[in-house]
Amino acid sequence: MEKITLAPATVLSPVPAVLVSCGDAEDNYNIIAVSWTGTLCSRPPMTYVSLRPATHSYHILEEKKEFVINLIPEDMLEVMDWCGRFSGRDVNKWQEKGLTPIKGETVKAPLIKECPVNIECKIVEIKVLGSHTMFMAEVTAVRADETYVKDGRIDLSAFRTVANVGGGYMKVNDFQGRQGFSIK
Amino acid sequence: MEKITLAPATVLSPVPAVLVSCGDAEDNYNIIAVSWTGTLCSRPPMTYVSLRPATHSYHILEEKKEFVINLIPEDMLEVMDWCGRFSGRDVNKWQEKGLTPIKGETVKAPLIKECPVNIECKIVEIKVLGSHTMFMAEVTAVRADETYVKDGRIDLSAFRTVANVGGGYMKVNDFQGRQGFSIK
Repeated sequence: MEKITLAPATVLSPVPAVLVSCGDAEDNYNIIAVSWTGTLCSRPPMTYVSLRPATHSYHILEEKKEFVINLIPEDMLEVMDWCGRFSGRDVNKWQEKGLTPIKGETVKAPLIKECPVNIECKIVEIKVLGSHTMFMAEVTAVRADETYVKDGRIDLSAFRTVANVGGGYMKVNDFQGRQGFSIK
Repeated sequence: MEKITLAPATVLSPVPAVLVSCGDAEDNYNIIAVSWTGTLCSRPPMTYVSLRPATHSYHILEEKKEFVINLIPEDMLEVMDWCGRFSGRDVNKWQEKGLTPIKGETVKAPLIKECPVNIECKIVEIKVLGSHTMFMAEVTAVRADETYVKDGRIDLSAFRTVANVGGGYMKVNDFQGRQGFSIK
């Protein structure tokens, strides 16, 4: 098949589709939908989120130096998409969508209780790149609904989630095997 | 439901599951399976891959300052997993798995012809983090099979791919709508 050459663009897929929560007191808690995130390092566990300076969460992250990544069960897809279309300057997303902030173990930033896996993060470096700024962070704790914990470790093989594929959403729910299955 | 607190770990999910190709001449072309990758910035389009120094590709990226991210159709899942279990020091992954290197438009690093979308990248910064080093890069061109190009842009709504979810693989193939669907 013929390859067509296109201009540079952000087509890497699938990428995560998650909700990031931030703030350090109930009157400044916010939520933002994020796909520009990923794992940077295994030991120490490191991640990042990239945000545009125009977002309400940008200055909260810059000031508080903490955030929580909340993984999305598939039945929260519409809530997540909605959270990506409005600003915390204009609406209280927690109240509008019935989301419950709960206390973190290692951060003041709130976890979203309705999300089954919550990743607590402390920012270690902020890099201005262009349209987006990368907030690099260390993972300081993971919290999960007991359904997804087996023998003290996360087991997501039954998790039903969603991904961002080229600016659209797809379901992610059909477990195929663990890394290394091809040589077992 | 009760939340259980766990030690910090790399549980962000879903994350990509892709093949990265590198090298600048046929005798040093290599392929590595990567999940520690993501989009860092929209304008300019920026991405990264994080690799362990022990990998064969690490020093190729360090020296050549280029790589290509190749997206995986679901029927290449086993090939991708296999590529993640062996080192290019010991095997020629192209020959073993019948993969075809083709020339890039903007980089000397080869594209994997069998992968329907190929993202050409030039490294702009290398950051040592811990177990992994992050190779930050600008996307310099995108190439795609004509099936996935509509009106000069990528359309992945019919793409059937895979993701890494907590160290296991899941299918990603059930299109749910474009970003913003919740307010349409």
